[in-house]
Amino acid sequence: MSNNYKVADYLLDRLVQVGIRHLFGVPGDFNLHFLDHVISHPVIQWMGCANELNAAYAADGYARVMPAAALLTTVGVGELSAINGTAGSFAEYLPVIHIVGTPVLRSQKAGELLHHSLGDGDFSHFSRMAKEVSCAQASLTAENAVAEIDRLLAAALSQRRPVYLQLPIDVGESDVVRHSGALVLPQAILSPTSLQAFIEAAREKLQSAHRVALLADFLADRFGARSSLNHWLSEVDLPHSTLLLGKGVLDETHPLFIGTYAGVASDASVKEYIENADVLITVGVWFVDTITAGFSQHITQDNCIDVQPEQVRIGRKVFSQIPMVAAVNALHGLCKTLQTEWQQPVITRHTPEISKDNMLNQQVFWSHIQHFLRPDDIVVTDQGTSCFGAAMLNLPSGCTFITQSLWGSIGFSLPAAYGAQVAQPQRRLILLVGDGAAQLTIQELGSMLRDGLNPIIFLLNNQGYTVERAIHGPQQRYNDIAAWNWTQLPQALAAGKESFTRRVTEVEQLQQVLAQIENTQQLTFIEVVLPPMDMPELLKSVTKSIEARNTTI
Amino acid sequence: MSNNYKVADYLLDRLVQVGIRHLFGVPGDFNLHFLDHVISHPVIQWMGCANELNAAYAADGYARVMPAAALLTTVGVGELSAINGTAGSFAEYLPVIHIVGTPVLRSQKAGELLHHSLGDGDFSHFSRMAKEVSCAQASLTAENAVAEIDRLLAAALSQRRPVYLQLPIDVGESDVVRHSGALVLPQAILSPTSLQAFIEAAREKLQSAHRVALLADFLADRFGARSSLNHWLSEVDLPHSTLLLGKGVLDETHPLFIGTYAGVASDASVKEYIENADVLITVGVWFVDTITAGFSQHITQDNCIDVQPEQVRIGRKVFSQIPMVAAVNALHGLCKTLQTEWQQPVITRHTPEISKDNMLNQQVFWSHIQHFLRPDDIVVTDQGTSCFGAAMLNLPSGCTFITQSLWGSIGFSLPAAYGAQVAQPQRRLILLVGDGAAQLTIQELGSMLRDGLNPIIFLLNNQGYTVERAIHGPQQRYNDIAAWNWTQLPQALAAGKESFTRRVTEVEQLQQVLAQIENTQQLTFIEVVLPPMDMPELLKSVTKSIEARNTTI
Repeated sequence: MSNNYKVADYLLDRLVQVGIRHLFGVPGDFNLHFLDHVISHPVIQWMGCANELNAAYAADGYARVMPAAALLTTVGVGELSAINGTAGSFAEYLPVIHIVGTPVLRSQKAGELLHHSLGDGDFSHFSRMAKEVSCAQASLTAENAVAEIDRLLAAALSQRRPVYLQLPIDVGESDVVRHSGALVLPQAILSPTSLQAFIEAAREKLQSAHRVALLADFLADRFGARSSLNHWLSEVDLPHSTLLLGKGVLDETHPLFIGTYAGVASDASVKEYIENADVLITVGVWFVDTITAGFSQHITQDNCIDVQPEQVRIGRKVFSQIPMVAAVNALHGLCKTLQTEWQQPVITRHTPEISKDNMLNQQVFWSHIQHFLRPDDIVVTDQGTSCFGAAMLNLPSGCTFITQSLWGSIGFSLPAAYGAQVAQPQRRLILLVGDGAAQLTIQELGSMLRDGLNPIIFLLNNQGYTVERAIHGPQQRYNDIAAWNWTQLPQALAAGKESFTRRVTEVEQLQQVLAQIENTQQLTFIEVVLPPMDMPELLKSVTKSIEARNTTI
Repeated sequence: MSNNYKVADYLLDRLVQVGIRHLFGVPGDFNLHFLDHVISHPVIQWMGCANELNAAYAADGYARVMPAAALLTTVGVGELSAINGTAGSFAEYLPVIHIVGTPVLRSQKAGELLHHSLGDGDFSHFSRMAKEVSCAQASLTAENAVAEIDRLLAAALSQRRPVYLQLPIDVGESDVVRHSGALVLPQAILSPTSLQAFIEAAREKLQSAHRVALLADFLADRFGARSSLNHWLSEVDLPHSTLLLGKGVLDETHPLFIGTYAGVASDASVKEYIENADVLITVGVWFVDTITAGFSQHITQDNCIDVQPEQVRIGRKVFSQIPMVAAVNALHGLCKTLQTEWQQPVITRHTPEISKDNMLNQQVFWSHIQHFLRPDDIVVTDQGTSCFGAAMLNLPSGCTFITQSLWGSIGFSLPAAYGAQVAQPQRRLILLVGDGAAQLTIQELGSMLRDGLNPIIFLLNNQGYTVERAIHGPQQRYNDIAAWNWTQLPQALAAGKESFTRRVTEVEQLQQVLAQIENTQQLTFIEVVLPPMDMPELLKSVTKSIEARNTTI
């Protein structure tokens, strides 16, 4: 009874239902049949990448601006090449559906000596590895396919983390009944009793306060609290800040946005508002070493109301079964009535003027980028000088900021920018990446050009791993990299495609180029030559504390 | 009691003792202190790669021509980027010492929220993942370091597989007593009783035979049986062959070398000799799907004497505790006395003439490469048309052939060639790689140029994944890749370094270029434009059988 509707089709239709429009990956002989279904699918578009790690980064970048993303690899070689990328999505809460094309079930059961296996007939090695970095796993059969696909998608979407789905060739080609209903996503559990108890405790805490501040981080973005948070801040006068990883969650044009908090490396006024508040409300915050200058936050748990994805803590008391958005809305309501008692913050935050310095250095560069930014830009930065420099930017409204400060895999940003622009081609995308980082994943520049994308790429050439130099071994040759002719790369990686490419070594050149490219419609690649040991102030503080922690034995 | 001799130094000295001279990897903040010791070490040289997967491939290539190799990454991001490379070394039996720089023990024990972690305070995720693809694992402490380093090196060297070694920053800097003795490697267990029983059974089997043949594969190389095997074949007239994965194990200039065996895809005479022998001696053979045209070998177990690393099987009877070399030597002795009774093989194998065809296609290209090869060349090929084309080459004596047919990770060959040439720069290295494969790992071309290496690279440009086209979807756009300007890449990836670069589209151009580069001393990059659907005969048979196995449900 062939109905011409297969498990592969069901899977693709379900991806569309959760908001996915593109599939990133690399073909391999165990996923080619599935790819036939992808190519014929009316919605899903195939985005072939140059390698699997890049594809995983691209999917991660896509998931940062879309409801979820999907990644396709072949078994063994493909999935393991991608696994550092999905580990990053796991650490930083991005729902990526990783589909792995596997051998026909008969071959797996027989333990055949197949290529892409370890040669021992055991096909479960890789799912055990994936289990460490995904929130749910499944190996599909014709019988379980519908239930397992739905279970995995629900897990990914509700837990905001990658799932791992093995699709044997024959299972993908099995008949299945076309689904009728929409996918039912599990709702986060809300306990009315717990919520009420939380509200009472929060009221008590807040009504005795004079100085209240708010600090938000990446989990506020991942668990859908962004608009509730900004609504709250539009109605209540609270000085507020984010950590680097959560940059962009709050509207930075708000008069009470005080800048990025980074422990002792924060601007004095940011530190003052956050650390000396009577009550600090933290929403989706994780104090990671690199973005707190080595856990240098001076924040007392007793002063905090800490909102996490599924629970809230006031001081040491935990209120469970309260989804983040419910807690945010409750706090919003409370603050509206209580704020009259609080001290009115007076914030004077000024956008730095364009530096008049004639030497092109980090400070001058970032002051120009500040003025180059426009509302709704997507700004993507890599680990290293680029994200720490960008930390101090004041984002225009509607900007999305992408960085990977917890997992911190260098090279992430270039493919992630590819993924983000595939998702939202109508927005201007600015990629800021160092030369050391760009070398890891440069291939995806070719994919950007092939697909006619138009990111503006600033390649910060400081001749090696400056962030590592700052931590240890400034003059050591292990922090050097192979010298490349960067401006030749866009042409080398794309036959017959036009791009705008420049190398700037002086301030005046930078100014000219920025004026030229403001409304560019083609891929733009600007190599910015910067001194090797120059770095943003924030990075200096952070790397100093990391080295201290690494050497104090 | 600081003696200025640290665990890091001990580890490096032990690497040297097992024959390692170079360390491949990428710096990261958790391995920078260890790198200081590397840089000051009198023997070990640091070979920085553009990314970790490339570094793992380079280490693998190094281990194929050296006693072992070493790889250094940082925790989490670095090690997971490399893990597909070490999985390949595990599958194909290459001893790679993977050193992972990890946070100071105190931070790990406290479960700190560090970058490069999953954020859950659990630092054991990655060692569990590594356990699936390494034969021994250790997390060093100051107390266990000496014992654990020795245990891991012994495991790698005796089992010929990767080991996984976590080196916390503080442990690397701990004092240790300089070792006095050499590392003691465990010897493979030899049971004299079992050996005697095997010899008697083999004699009985061989003395009733008329037609005896020998088939060797990669494990004969990995377990050190190469020279014993070739000595045997120099004294005994046995028609002999290898599988593709073991190509180069036997001297192919020997008059009784009959060519590569590949099941039904073999030349008729190879098939005849191997499959119709009364007794077939197999040494270190694994019948993998891709190199047997889908398990199409017609070989009866009852006719076989099968020598494996630690045991021998005659028909269905297993003789355990016999190391491969002991079995080979025993069979050599038996054959010398028994061969007078056997049928004398008459082999007429002719090196194909240079094709007179005017169109540049696979057949013409490989016939030219056949004549271009010289004794002692290292020939490296990738999965796809390049390894299947090269399978039919008749290697001059002393050549090393590198391919990865079991694990089959495309993109492996370019970094592996880098590793192999770092190991043996005095030998000419020829890399044959398709455009699809080269895109995955192109960065290491920059490392080759930076280090002044002089491989001869043939980039077979057939506009996409021809091997996948052959299996499924010849016209599907998922088998296309981004079009690159290949000949611009050597210059783009190396500022200020000279290379010889050409693009050839006609036979005459190929001939001219081959004449020019025969004795080249600089890196040579030849883009050879070939028809997208043209492929070596062997690949046609193999891919046909793979597709049949993938679709017969």
